[in-house]
Amino acid sequence: MKADIEIAREASMKPVLDIAAGLGVDAGHLVPYGHYKAKIGLDYINSLRDRDNGKLVLVTAMSPTPAGEGKTTVAIGLADAMNRLQKRASVCLREPSLGPCFGLKGGAAGGGMSQVVPMEDINLHFTGDMHAIGAAHNLLAAMIDNYIHWGNDRRLDLRRMTWRRVVDINDRQLRQIVTGIGGPANGFPMEAGFDITVASEVMAIFCLARDLQDLQRRLGNIVIGHTREKEPVTAAEVQAPGAMTALLRDALAPNLVQTLENSPAFIHGGPFANIAHGCNSVIATETALKLSDYVVTEAGFGADLGAEKFFNIKCRKSGLVPDVAVIVVTVRALKMHGGVARDALDEEDVTALEAGLENLGRHIRNCGQYGVPLVVAINHFASDSDAEIAAITTYVAQRGLKAHLCTHHRDGGGGALGLAEDVISLADSGRAQFRTLYDDHLSLWEKARTVARAVYGADELDADQKVRDQFAQFEEEGYGHFPVCMAKTQYSFSTDPQQMGAPSNHRVKVRELVLAAGAEFLVVVCGDIMRMPGLPRKPAANNIHVNAQGQIEGLF
Amino acid sequence: MKADIEIAREASMKPVLDIAAGLGVDAGHLVPYGHYKAKIGLDYINSLRDRDNGKLVLVTAMSPTPAGEGKTTVAIGLADAMNRLQKRASVCLREPSLGPCFGLKGGAAGGGMSQVVPMEDINLHFTGDMHAIGAAHNLLAAMIDNYIHWGNDRRLDLRRMTWRRVVDINDRQLRQIVTGIGGPANGFPMEAGFDITVASEVMAIFCLARDLQDLQRRLGNIVIGHTREKEPVTAAEVQAPGAMTALLRDALAPNLVQTLENSPAFIHGGPFANIAHGCNSVIATETALKLSDYVVTEAGFGADLGAEKFFNIKCRKSGLVPDVAVIVVTVRALKMHGGVARDALDEEDVTALEAGLENLGRHIRNCGQYGVPLVVAINHFASDSDAEIAAITTYVAQRGLKAHLCTHHRDGGGGALGLAEDVISLADSGRAQFRTLYDDHLSLWEKARTVARAVYGADELDADQKVRDQFAQFEEEGYGHFPVCMAKTQYSFSTDPQQMGAPSNHRVKVRELVLAAGAEFLVVVCGDIMRMPGLPRKPAANNIHVNAQGQIEGLF
Repeated sequence: MKADIEIAREASMKPVLDIAAGLGVDAGHLVPYGHYKAKIGLDYINSLRDRDNGKLVLVTAMSPTPAGEGKTTVAIGLADAMNRLQKRASVCLREPSLGPCFGLKGGAAGGGMSQVVPMEDINLHFTGDMHAIGAAHNLLAAMIDNYIHWGNDRRLDLRRMTWRRVVDINDRQLRQIVTGIGGPANGFPMEAGFDITVASEVMAIFCLARDLQDLQRRLGNIVIGHTREKEPVTAAEVQAPGAMTALLRDALAPNLVQTLENSPAFIHGGPFANIAHGCNSVIATETALKLSDYVVTEAGFGADLGAEKFFNIKCRKSGLVPDVAVIVVTVRALKMHGGVARDALDEEDVTALEAGLENLGRHIRNCGQYGVPLVVAINHFASDSDAEIAAITTYVAQRGLKAHLCTHHRDGGGGALGLAEDVISLADSGRAQFRTLYDDHLSLWEKARTVARAVYGADELDADQKVRDQFAQFEEEGYGHFPVCMAKTQYSFSTDPQQMGAPSNHRVKVRELVLAAGAEFLVVVCGDIMRMPGLPRKPAANNIHVNAQGQIEGLF
Repeated sequence: MKADIEIAREASMKPVLDIAAGLGVDAGHLVPYGHYKAKIGLDYINSLRDRDNGKLVLVTAMSPTPAGEGKTTVAIGLADAMNRLQKRASVCLREPSLGPCFGLKGGAAGGGMSQVVPMEDINLHFTGDMHAIGAAHNLLAAMIDNYIHWGNDRRLDLRRMTWRRVVDINDRQLRQIVTGIGGPANGFPMEAGFDITVASEVMAIFCLARDLQDLQRRLGNIVIGHTREKEPVTAAEVQAPGAMTALLRDALAPNLVQTLENSPAFIHGGPFANIAHGCNSVIATETALKLSDYVVTEAGFGADLGAEKFFNIKCRKSGLVPDVAVIVVTVRALKMHGGVARDALDEEDVTALEAGLENLGRHIRNCGQYGVPLVVAINHFASDSDAEIAAITTYVAQRGLKAHLCTHHRDGGGGALGLAEDVISLADSGRAQFRTLYDDHLSLWEKARTVARAVYGADELDADQKVRDQFAQFEEEGYGHFPVCMAKTQYSFSTDPQQMGAPSNHRVKVRELVLAAGAEFLVVVCGDIMRMPGLPRKPAANNIHVNAQGQIEGLF
């Protein structure tokens, strides 16, 4: 099979004006970025408020393994298949970060015959949203330190400043630094550090904001540190939110591109799925729902993290109501959960696969709690055997669900028609009775405990007294109504990445709390969370270049 | 008079497609960014190679003072005036940095009735070039440290790493930092720091590159540090230039916008005028020359820095041939050079002004050395008296030149018609016999000495033995044919910013050399050079916000 970038380069793209026209959007409401990317104007989006929404389909997955699952390709293939079935369907995805693109993972625009295009643009600067978010974040950092520099070091406690900086590159060297050395002209010496841009609270806020005014309000609520009396200090104090919003104004309009099969694709915002909620922007999803009969979207990592946050944070805070959830599995990943080593995945092993199915089983049980009809998508690989696929189908059928073998990676939308028919039928059935997992009025501790028990299958949530006191303090400070944003390893239901399958009788320990007062959730950190990846020994960037025809080579 | 942003908001902009059509460029050769900004495709630009060039007019200035001079408004007003005279004229300017925009200086898109629009876009993210340059710069930094992290710490000497990082924000706190603390997973502890993006060598390279391949080649030549044996190590060694070029590919196409009077404006690239050469990109200027009969461009700071580098670096390296140079003065700035305090500038003071005219005289003498006809533009302020203006006109006439009073800030192109007629006549006269100030084959030391003596009026160039040895070393390493890029204060011909007017009998001491092997010049640092500004006590950002209509307020 050809490389993704070759397939992408040979795509028969339609002008984005035509893609928009297919959604009923006039050219006058678009801000074009080249001929194949556009932003949809916020004024126009406001004018759609009274329209009915289409049906919302979440694509989530089993617990990820190095073998790969393929949520993004399933989401794209499913939207393409729906369009082949003459339905007006769009796909909503997150914006890729430059970090993984130049590091280990490559691009994040799908793959094979299920890609969004123009692939190079989407993977690199796209419409500049990531840069705008980084600039807004770092402007706040500079304004905080400047505020201190000019005489407010008695107001803000230098030892209690919590706002870091960001860069959209994997740069381990910047994780932990000391700034402000070299004398008074360079500020006060302080401990500091950089996260990757997608880990910024500004990104989370951007993805949850309803409009520009809501964005400006939320930015003002960001807690940047504390006074010597331990009172929280917000971004509003340093008068940064206005300028930050100015930097984000254009970015907040959602981006429209297309799939290889010319289905509309909204790609907008891309927060981490551990330290943040891992879904594309509310504005993009809402816009897609106003303009499409069916909207397929994805959430980061496995369903224990991505779907949980999609339902309990994004849907709760935005009022979005999901109609169907698709759980993506692969034979290879199930075998890894059943104990097969990565280099033995090509061999048939039904026994191991059956052992690994308990991972899927737990996700099915979990997702059932949200009142949304479920369907399983088997993302097909050439090495899959018929017996292995049959074992999945049988297992899923025993749980009252259907599993669809999907060959969209090789065949495009034509490889996901069975899945699409089932999803359409479930979405139209009116069976969905969406509910969140916990109510706003539960305490923060109880919310985290509910997720740990009902989703992770833990016996109990633990924390040292210091962390328990912090929970109580955030309640006192008035943040008790926030949902929790759980940050734990994506590789296991437990906090131990080595425990594959569906571990039970484990306990979840909260290591740290991070308040995201602007994003309006409390990050509950259980385990080591990487907010700034490093580059591998041989970064993907080593092989990327521009050829004599001005084309980019080496992106994948 | 209305605020700049109000004037800009009321502009009758034409669609950028119409602006391009006026230059004979079909829509198919444009990459639109919204309706009022576009990039002109590099393939199309290549197809123009055999066309004749229009006439090239440089706008430069006397030594800057806090009173302001107004090179940018003169350049815009002049191009507008030429268009009013039915000439096909374009203006070429640098891209603004976010740093000053949120700091002290405000935007950099002209002012009054001589602005380029859309003003908010140009001042904020524009078409993303600045972000692309920053990302390319920081990708290299991450790849260097990653290369060291994975076992090449014996190859690259940690103590001799010279590649810093950049951010497009005034952030003094990042000037001098220690990175890589927190243990082996975070890299080696190293001294490091951030410059503002416009001070990046990547920016200088971007502005001098002829095409993508030349860009990729130059990026590979960047010296990032030295081995223990003091051998230079380049960016090519860490395999970064390809990915950096991929990040810069779209950015390298020049940006087309318009003035308030719908004259075409090319705004592309914006290097510092001390540590770098302070001119917009060669590609933009060349493209404008192929598409226009007259092209007005500007260079940073006063003529001792900006014009010198425009002639001796940009024109030398690109083969561009200037036809006329305009020297901008103001009554207020001349009075400051004559000793008047900033708060007394509203009062008439012909004596002080006449004393200050020696600053202009030196610039006239200097610019005469390049064989290009000169004209003086007096950028009019309401406080100017007739006697003061007459004194300038007389002084200039005594030197065989004309001075034109320009009211373009208030009147648009109509306020610079006299200047335009004179510039057109000089450009068409064929009088220009452009020559650079020194030949390539002079030694690096002699090149710097020539600028110090012939431009700054210094008696001699000085340097400690260590710096002299460095000069010799760069000759040995094969960089002797590079031009020099002088970095000194913009406020004085000397290296002492307090010495206004036209100081003589001073000596210029070289403090430090910085090789820009990719940009292909040697930076000769004479005095303290700020590569990372700080925010003032009350930054402009404090007052910027987005109003209920989604408009940006507070930009100026």
